[in-house]
Amino acid sequence: MSGLEPGRLSLNTATVREQWGLAEAIEGCARYGIGGISPWRDKLHEMGVDAAAKAIRDAGLGVSGLCRGGWFTERGAIDAEVRNDNRRAVDEAAALGAECLVMVVGGLPKGSKDLPAAWSLVEEGLAETLDYARKAGVKIAIEPLHPMYAADRACVNTMGHALDICDRLGDGIGCAVDVYHVWWDPELETQLARAGKERIMAFHICDWLVPTRDMLTDRGMMGDGVIDIPGIRGLVEAQGFDGLNEVEIFSALDWWKRDPDEVLATIVERGRSVC
Amino acid sequence: MSGLEPGRLSLNTATVREQWGLAEAIEGCARYGIGGISPWRDKLHEMGVDAAAKAIRDAGLGVSGLCRGGWFTERGAIDAEVRNDNRRAVDEAAALGAECLVMVVGGLPKGSKDLPAAWSLVEEGLAETLDYARKAGVKIAIEPLHPMYAADRACVNTMGHALDICDRLGDGIGCAVDVYHVWWDPELETQLARAGKERIMAFHICDWLVPTRDMLTDRGMMGDGVIDIPGIRGLVEAQGFDGLNEVEIFSALDWWKRDPDEVLATIVERGRSVC
Repeated sequence: MSGLEPGRLSLNTATVREQWGLAEAIEGCARYGIGGISPWRDKLHEMGVDAAAKAIRDAGLGVSGLCRGGWFTERGAIDAEVRNDNRRAVDEAAALGAECLVMVVGGLPKGSKDLPAAWSLVEEGLAETLDYARKAGVKIAIEPLHPMYAADRACVNTMGHALDICDRLGDGIGCAVDVYHVWWDPELETQLARAGKERIMAFHICDWLVPTRDMLTDRGMMGDGVIDIPGIRGLVEAQGFDGLNEVEIFSALDWWKRDPDEVLATIVERGRSVC
Repeated sequence: MSGLEPGRLSLNTATVREQWGLAEAIEGCARYGIGGISPWRDKLHEMGVDAAAKAIRDAGLGVSGLCRGGWFTERGAIDAEVRNDNRRAVDEAAALGAECLVMVVGGLPKGSKDLPAAWSLVEEGLAETLDYARKAGVKIAIEPLHPMYAADRACVNTMGHALDICDRLGDGIGCAVDVYHVWWDPELETQLARAGKERIMAFHICDWLVPTRDMLTDRGMMGDGVIDIPGIRGLVEAQGFDGLNEVEIFSALDWWKRDPDEVLATIVERGRSVC
């Protein structure tokens, strides 16, 4: 499989979150020929949704996703605050014309050890948000996070579990497939085939470093770790996925410390050489 | 479900590995009424297999397992060194009368990104070792490790994957179920039922801390984290498992720094109160 030209890449703003605001990230993508962007909402709110939508449009960028809705378990119930924040996220995704709203569903409620109860709360929140999102024409993408985040970030940790939820909830909901979270899963190929084009709504790339020095902020640049990125991309594309390849690297120990132009130049080079 | 009296607990020597050799751990178990022990092989070799077997017998302790065989991917092939080390481990398990030889199967070979190839190597190694173990009357227990260890410790990370291997290999092989590794898995209940009594060969307890500060050596004492230990124990016992509850806590940041008598007293207290 040949590598990825920059026009097939998207920059998740988390990758340069310590260096750049959204306006600078949009300009950076345009400068390096990167085809799209995926803003985090904190960056989006700083810039303003309308200004961001216009700047992204003017730069000719796609929007591979908006990060993120979810956190359904944070308050122990789907209350007005949780519900309204997710509706706002849907509205923002619509305003940006994002391919999907990415959902980080939340872990165990504080003080709880009841994982099945957390799963129920997540499904309740997804169902409500999906209902709203369908009317807004926004697709909802559950991002199964690596099982090491089950307690404190997301209690949906496999494609299989995410797709079980999708099957129960129907159209308009699918998965954001991030190689960092799913590369280890012996069911990955089977579950990607089960997902099919309809339910593969986003594809995120980075790498798993050995050793990993921090559970949250030590993701690697593509090629620096052990993930077979072309292999997984091949499985995703075999299902018909033809969206952007979104680069999302949390790296307090390395890439967040570097000149952001070096980060983008490296992304472009690695896209071609190792993805 | 009522708690665990100390006679139903076993001490994995890793829990006090910085403080005690095997002889002291055996004496400690006897002193606190703990029903069994599970030695790591480094501690076993220091003491000597025959001396250890005699001391364990004299103390009236069960041996809930021997840690560990495996590491089949370490050298990129099942060569004489890997084969012979696993045979020695089987012989040692037989000499101790251990309930099982626990297998940590190994991660990706150095420089490899080929997970399916690693899986094949693991299955080849397990098949060879199982053949030898059957003649020695030793049971082989695959320990699925948490997916965060897929690259560097064990590329079998779910009960489902482990049981697929067991089904292909036949009798005499099963799983060591460690709550730390499997608590997050939405398939856990289904896969424990699939395993049944025959394939649940060991049950390990500790806790998942939030936050987890180190991926390897920050496991928690039972009750200090988010794992529903009585719930998982209930699932295991519903299958007929009636072995010892083995306490294995890697804790460089806390319990390895404490007086080992405090560690054992706490284990006994927590066994009764939260397990």
